[in-house]
Amino acid sequence: MRMSQVVAPTLREDPAEAEIVSHKLMLRGGYIRKLAAGVYTFLPLGFRVLNKVASIIRQEMDRAGAQEVLMPTLLPAELWQETGRWGIYGKELFRIKDRHDREFCLGPTHEEIITDLVRTSLRSYKQLPVNLYQIQTKFRDEIRPRFGLMRGREFMMKDAYSFHASAESLDKEYRNMRETYCRIFDRMGLKYRVVEADSGLIGGGYSQEFMVLAETGEEEIFHCPSCSYSASRESAGIGEYKMSRVAGRGPLVEEVHTPKVRTVEEVSAFLRIQPSQLIKTLIYETERGAVAALVRGDHAINEAKLKKVAGVEDLRLAEAAVIKKVTGAPVGFAGPVGLKGVRIIADNAVPFIEDGASGANKEDCHLVHIAYGRDYRAELTGDIRYAARADKCPRCERGKFESSRGIEVGHIFKLGTKYSSKMNCVYLDENNREQAMIMGCYGIGVGRTAAAAIEQNNDKDGIVWPAPLAPFAAAIIPANINEKEQADAAKKLYQELRTAGVDVLFDDREDRMGVKLKDIDLIGIPLKIIIGKALKEGKVEIKDRKTGETILKEISSVRDIRGLIG
Amino acid sequence: MRMSQVVAPTLREDPAEAEIVSHKLMLRGGYIRKLAAGVYTFLPLGFRVLNKVASIIRQEMDRAGAQEVLMPTLLPAELWQETGRWGIYGKELFRIKDRHDREFCLGPTHEEIITDLVRTSLRSYKQLPVNLYQIQTKFRDEIRPRFGLMRGREFMMKDAYSFHASAESLDKEYRNMRETYCRIFDRMGLKYRVVEADSGLIGGGYSQEFMVLAETGEEEIFHCPSCSYSASRESAGIGEYKMSRVAGRGPLVEEVHTPKVRTVEEVSAFLRIQPSQLIKTLIYETERGAVAALVRGDHAINEAKLKKVAGVEDLRLAEAAVIKKVTGAPVGFAGPVGLKGVRIIADNAVPFIEDGASGANKEDCHLVHIAYGRDYRAELTGDIRYAARADKCPRCERGKFESSRGIEVGHIFKLGTKYSSKMNCVYLDENNREQAMIMGCYGIGVGRTAAAAIEQNNDKDGIVWPAPLAPFAAAIIPANINEKEQADAAKKLYQELRTAGVDVLFDDREDRMGVKLKDIDLIGIPLKIIIGKALKEGKVEIKDRKTGETILKEISSVRDIRGLIG
Repeated sequence: MRMSQVVAPTLREDPAEAEIVSHKLMLRGGYIRKLAAGVYTFLPLGFRVLNKVASIIRQEMDRAGAQEVLMPTLLPAELWQETGRWGIYGKELFRIKDRHDREFCLGPTHEEIITDLVRTSLRSYKQLPVNLYQIQTKFRDEIRPRFGLMRGREFMMKDAYSFHASAESLDKEYRNMRETYCRIFDRMGLKYRVVEADSGLIGGGYSQEFMVLAETGEEEIFHCPSCSYSASRESAGIGEYKMSRVAGRGPLVEEVHTPKVRTVEEVSAFLRIQPSQLIKTLIYETERGAVAALVRGDHAINEAKLKKVAGVEDLRLAEAAVIKKVTGAPVGFAGPVGLKGVRIIADNAVPFIEDGASGANKEDCHLVHIAYGRDYRAELTGDIRYAARADKCPRCERGKFESSRGIEVGHIFKLGTKYSSKMNCVYLDENNREQAMIMGCYGIGVGRTAAAAIEQNNDKDGIVWPAPLAPFAAAIIPANINEKEQADAAKKLYQELRTAGVDVLFDDREDRMGVKLKDIDLIGIPLKIIIGKALKEGKVEIKDRKTGETILKEISSVRDIRGLIG
Repeated sequence: MRMSQVVAPTLREDPAEAEIVSHKLMLRGGYIRKLAAGVYTFLPLGFRVLNKVASIIRQEMDRAGAQEVLMPTLLPAELWQETGRWGIYGKELFRIKDRHDREFCLGPTHEEIITDLVRTSLRSYKQLPVNLYQIQTKFRDEIRPRFGLMRGREFMMKDAYSFHASAESLDKEYRNMRETYCRIFDRMGLKYRVVEADSGLIGGGYSQEFMVLAETGEEEIFHCPSCSYSASRESAGIGEYKMSRVAGRGPLVEEVHTPKVRTVEEVSAFLRIQPSQLIKTLIYETERGAVAALVRGDHAINEAKLKKVAGVEDLRLAEAAVIKKVTGAPVGFAGPVGLKGVRIIADNAVPFIEDGASGANKEDCHLVHIAYGRDYRAELTGDIRYAARADKCPRCERGKFESSRGIEVGHIFKLGTKYSSKMNCVYLDENNREQAMIMGCYGIGVGRTAAAAIEQNNDKDGIVWPAPLAPFAAAIIPANINEKEQADAAKKLYQELRTAGVDVLFDDREDRMGVKLKDIDLIGIPLKIIIGKALKEGKVEIKDRKTGETILKEISSVRDIRGLIG
């Protein structure tokens, strides 16, 4: 394409609406424009990138044996009511009524729809397994859409759903998809990590996330340097504590008056102890009554884990009145000693606190020198906190966690029969008996992947696209388009590269060289082919966006740009 | 793909929900499934066809110099309010509020959005012209969605919008798009006609429609056998009448008592005259007062044409009370003689009625022997009726209309400044003065084109795809997959054709040959490669879906299927 004709309105300044680098650069590079909060138009450059991401996904999904379909955006409420998600989804679901007052939502995900399609299309175990996918726009009415394509209200996803007659068949396809996803992100030239994950609203059993690594990533990821374990902060397990339990042979419990100290930092400074000696005690309400959860002062409670350990579905921090009733004290002075009428659940690390401290269940008072087993006990102990750096790996029990940051771009789930059993999606087995199909589902955020690629690959001058995702592989830039020799050589090379099937941009603008280079660098084209003074010797400059490396090359040999640099 | 794995649930019977052949065959062939009224899922075969249609469109739009973008589905009300279409569009617009109560619609078309994008992105005449297109899902809350993909509520469209600094530039791009559309439909192997059309709700100036010809087509098309003129029934003009006007030398007016006769047929039978002698008189209300429109009894009034001739925007049949007031009689007895206080507009054919008849503006009475000029006059005469077969061509004034039926699949418009002037979409000209951009817009219904292709190409056994749109170019069918030789030969050929880049379907099912052939014919694969008895001589049967022609061919020579038959 000719740059003079491409609608790519670049901006000199960072737009006020953008907070993160990918959002800023996509706006500045003329890739996208905001139409409404979380709703974007893809300009020609943006569409090209979206298309490159989608094409790689499509090729690899096809190669993996999945079949492409296209499901609608307007989804009838009835199907969502069958699984109960019409009620659960809440305000994130865009709901709409047609002229006959029938209720629909704009699809945020398609489990119900594909399950309905399969239950009415397939009957026999002989027709399974199948894996159906689509690349399509999804809708979610985020309370606070932000970060450009990272958290939009209208966004493109690849979603795939597999149906099986056995758990082994699901396992096999899950591995197939895992490998396919690795091929996809490898082909895109991205650095990423596959992590154990929480299933969230989609639900079901085991799941893993694909995280593109970037310092600016929204999520913390832990991985073990000794084994292959990797997990998101949400779901990272923690290796078991194997210290010998202390017996509480220290000094006896003492009450200390602690007025006006509240936070972990304030209390430990006042008591002259380490935060790790403090026993943070949080009172929760659940459908099975109140629970007191204990974690070390330097640890953070993970409510998803606490729910599992406590065996409850509904869990929320107790209101002041409940805390007063349970502990006898106002908020901020709860502690495990003498606590009655409430289940106490302690994190695995808590029993090992020698010489602990905690609230005294009495206003402005703390207890010191408390010991597990002697002064208090928990009904249950378990892993109820977020992992942190240097925690022990739960898989090999040897390595200590290292952490990095990442952006979730893909998620694969073993759903099991969560949807098929509710929706009566069954097959006839070898004995002609009805069985619920076993399902998997597999998603990739298309726009999100493009944004994550930028978060991982940028510098002060702009985007540094990995070649497979760049809107153009190379840009031809004549130093002065008004010099006939340069212009002619540029046009000729442009035609040759196009004929050779290279996505090439011809910067035919009359602007100064500096302006053109700035734009091309901002846009992030991997290779610049500069036609300038060296043309007299039949040569052009070829400059690598990433390394800055420049080589001189015979213009006649620039036919195949693959492998030119880098 | 292997037929045993493709999710293509074929049906033996015509589904009750389908009225037209394309809808029936897409359901029966396992191409689509209904999710809700006018809302369809594309199964793998359906998606492949959709993709073939979209790919040809994309290639030709790119070749024509248009740039692909992607605009959102969620469109903010504010932009639609700027052009006033938020109010005009009525119930066809799916309207939705987000969680903050902001109003959006689901895009049925994108003039407002692209105009907003261009007014904020381009400033100078030097940046024009541009042509931006997208292939995307549109939404329209049809009161009665029907005919499968023909009139859906959620459907895929290619829409393009061009912006210009001069009318000449628009004319040039309009011709470019017209030629591009011809290339697109030629490449798809469709028979079509380009017709003059009415602009409808999109508005603006000149427009043409691309009609795929099919006997089952929804619209009547007129064309002139002497020149290239072609037009839809809505917009076909009618050549002028050049008969010498009659002077009214016949018998004088007489009143006839006509109780209980109402329709044109009843009245003309009762009066023993031809319907062409009757002067049908319809009373309309407009923003400029009541109008009496006169057409011959055998002609049908075209309200779009009447609006233009009358110079009004708002036109509707008058209520009984208004008719009573204007004519002095109840509904059914209006006539031009003695009519006062109302503009009379006559169709061009009316003044030539010798010895006419009409209502007498008196209950149960008609007048006979009435003559134009003697007994009544019109304030205006003009073309206010639908064309019919044998009407004179308005362009060459020689040919007489022939008619055929077609399905609208594309529409190109010269919009002019209809949107840009309302939305202040301006550029700076050579003298640095602001001018409204001049626009064109160009649409193709993607799913509709697939359906129209079936309406044009089918037989009693199923679909007969034109090769460029078929989900697979060929199907390999071993007569008996359990015979090792046949199965091996089939697998080998399947691999060879895939390697050669042919979209080939391998019918590896264990069903009887008859069942397999029936399915493959229903689905409409252009070529069947049957591996049966002739394999002993190293040969396969190749059968053309369209002609039924069969040839025997060396299996080793079936590498390139192009040009094998037909």
